[in-house]
Amino acid sequence: MSKKISSEPYKGVRDFYPEDYATQKYIFSTWRKIAERVGYVEYEASILEPAELYKAKGADNEEIVKEQTYTFVDRGDREVTLRPEMTPTVARMVAAKRRELGFPLRFFSIPNLFRYERPQRGRLREHWQLNVDIFGSRSLAADAEIIAVAYGIMRAFGAENKDFEIRVGSRAVLNNLITELGLSEDSAKQLFSLLDRRTKISAEEFGQGLADLGVSADKISSNEPPEDIAKILQDFRDAGIDNIVYDPSIVRGFSYYTGMVFEVFDTHPENNRSLFGGGRYDNLTQMFDDEPLPGVGFGMGDVTIRDFLAVRNLLPPYTPPTKVYIAIPSPELATEANTFAGRYLRPQGVNVAIDFGERKLSDQIKTATKHKIPYLIVLGPDEFTSGNVKVRDLTSGEEKIFTKELLAEFFLNLGK
Amino acid sequence: MSKKISSEPYKGVRDFYPEDYATQKYIFSTWRKIAERVGYVEYEASILEPAELYKAKGADNEEIVKEQTYTFVDRGDREVTLRPEMTPTVARMVAAKRRELGFPLRFFSIPNLFRYERPQRGRLREHWQLNVDIFGSRSLAADAEIIAVAYGIMRAFGAENKDFEIRVGSRAVLNNLITELGLSEDSAKQLFSLLDRRTKISAEEFGQGLADLGVSADKISSNEPPEDIAKILQDFRDAGIDNIVYDPSIVRGFSYYTGMVFEVFDTHPENNRSLFGGGRYDNLTQMFDDEPLPGVGFGMGDVTIRDFLAVRNLLPPYTPPTKVYIAIPSPELATEANTFAGRYLRPQGVNVAIDFGERKLSDQIKTATKHKIPYLIVLGPDEFTSGNVKVRDLTSGEEKIFTKELLAEFFLNLGK
Repeated sequence: MSKKISSEPYKGVRDFYPEDYATQKYIFSTWRKIAERVGYVEYEASILEPAELYKAKGADNEEIVKEQTYTFVDRGDREVTLRPEMTPTVARMVAAKRRELGFPLRFFSIPNLFRYERPQRGRLREHWQLNVDIFGSRSLAADAEIIAVAYGIMRAFGAENKDFEIRVGSRAVLNNLITELGLSEDSAKQLFSLLDRRTKISAEEFGQGLADLGVSADKISSNEPPEDIAKILQDFRDAGIDNIVYDPSIVRGFSYYTGMVFEVFDTHPENNRSLFGGGRYDNLTQMFDDEPLPGVGFGMGDVTIRDFLAVRNLLPPYTPPTKVYIAIPSPELATEANTFAGRYLRPQGVNVAIDFGERKLSDQIKTATKHKIPYLIVLGPDEFTSGNVKVRDLTSGEEKIFTKELLAEFFLNLGK
Repeated sequence: MSKKISSEPYKGVRDFYPEDYATQKYIFSTWRKIAERVGYVEYEASILEPAELYKAKGADNEEIVKEQTYTFVDRGDREVTLRPEMTPTVARMVAAKRRELGFPLRFFSIPNLFRYERPQRGRLREHWQLNVDIFGSRSLAADAEIIAVAYGIMRAFGAENKDFEIRVGSRAVLNNLITELGLSEDSAKQLFSLLDRRTKISAEEFGQGLADLGVSADKISSNEPPEDIAKILQDFRDAGIDNIVYDPSIVRGFSYYTGMVFEVFDTHPENNRSLFGGGRYDNLTQMFDDEPLPGVGFGMGDVTIRDFLAVRNLLPPYTPPTKVYIAIPSPELATEANTFAGRYLRPQGVNVAIDFGERKLSDQIKTATKHKIPYLIVLGPDEFTSGNVKVRDLTSGEEKIFTKELLAEFFLNLGK
């Protein structure tokens, strides 16, 4: 007996068995449907990127590159990183084909991303993330559209306005303030971090933090949005969308944001946290060429949204793609059963699995049930002779008889 | 001016811009449709796997693990490999949930796989591969079904029988022969390699190779298939499928095959090579537990099939998901245009992109054309007042006027 190895996946990543993967595909297809409805087109790239792509980005990114990425040297001495986010990749791709692409450009992708983190709830080492971006527009309408896509996706998942809140901030206001106060880069970072933690700390602690930085509280605590953000909020409210507010504490982590920033919060009292967000960045392609290209976008991860939907019972129940299981009383009938399915069911569009008849019928039916296939047909010599087959509903036990010519129609009309 | 970095992707991998990715999605959806039609369900896993998964597999795999994989040590001192093939992953997953899964089990997946190879035509460092497997059946009908799925996919892509040939061999016959002749493991490997190169070398060279191994030519050159393979071939011919033959030189690279093996060849005179293949393996889960589990399956890569389809003009032309582009004469109309689309087009199911009106109309139309969006609407004050809009076919230049209420219907009926 040889040494056995573990059947566990690598730490912090997931195996997707068919039921899990069906949920994953439901999330992806909802993302895709809404993005395409608003005119976005899908791109992809490899998970392997030159490591320099992340090093070039900005000082606040150093910690992520150094400590939180999978970076290794390949056999050709190239430093390679498993992409930790998609934005540098899409900036690279847009810069590479800038003359051909046509702007405004609406791009989306559903990449898997890798971070070397301690696995915990909502934070895995590999996750998938919808990335939605508009390149080549400075219009406020582009900012509003990006928020509207995020809103539309939440609604398409079945969330109601009361289930989530969109909080909009402005990096432009903050950046102006930093310039006005003459804050150093370090102090600016501390201010961002302080604002980011605003709702998690006491008013005293927040006030003390501001005082330490020499920032007076009234500079920050304004709840009056700047004009551009006010216009966006008004348009949403005019459209009957009331779960959107101005929140000056929304700053987002990345240094590349330059204007509107937003985060979508779960309003559940026990899980009042940020689900995802995005904002406007105006200089991302500058690491590749000298012509600035404005952009605005957001990213939405599969793990957090899956948790959000699961808690609210908004994930659809599993139904396999297979509509009917054919059981056969003996293995010699396998070819005939396959010919039957190939004539009366599959060409018509019905997904059929056939047992190979190696076990008794009751065991074959158990397989159908384990696979959650809704209907069963037993095909024996009688059925082949008469051409009439009995369809059993494996949930209710109900049975109906059809001629082979009318069989496909029954399955195609299900759920209509 | 700071140093600029390259906008090229990492060596040997691909960027998928929307047109490329649409082709990719066409290939994936064709794979998915046929696999599901025959009762297969989709699973996925991470590209990150413990390196031991590949080391345990078999001696002939050593070269691949040592020299052709991306393997690195993570920050927690775990040796990690980017999966070079999917079979060990699915064997791991099936072994882990063996009691729950229900057999026969039909599984498929479309993973991306990584090999550290010199990039060349048809061999990239990252490619996607359909994996189709049946677990838990020793039936000859399972072998036949796996070949039939491969055949069905080729036909679903539009290939005709004359475009490809299915060559079926038998590892069982070869394995018996090796035992009979008492060949060492090394000699057996050499014999496999010799058979694999059979069609590429001269008859003399082939004969000499056999002689060197002490194998008489008549042991190998039989063109009479063993009984099980003969039955499979007969069933296919009975079904009118004539591009399937017995070929004793088909051996496949991996050591885990134990029975039927097959490869699908391109019949194009300038590209008469193997496109993909598979076969029966009966011991794959044994590295995880002691109970053997039979399996049969195949893998089909995106790069070779894409080349095959491109040469024969079988790839569909690109059509973007976006059906209509709305241009506006001034940026102030962006909100109103968005409201219009949100009332008369998007809820009905029409995918619409709206220009933000930052450039003149002719430039906006150029964007629609670059994006290959088939129709254009210009929404100005007149259209908002009258409620009548002109739809321009951007290919023919033809224009039609619709009331806003009948607009969606026009787009939804296209191509019906």
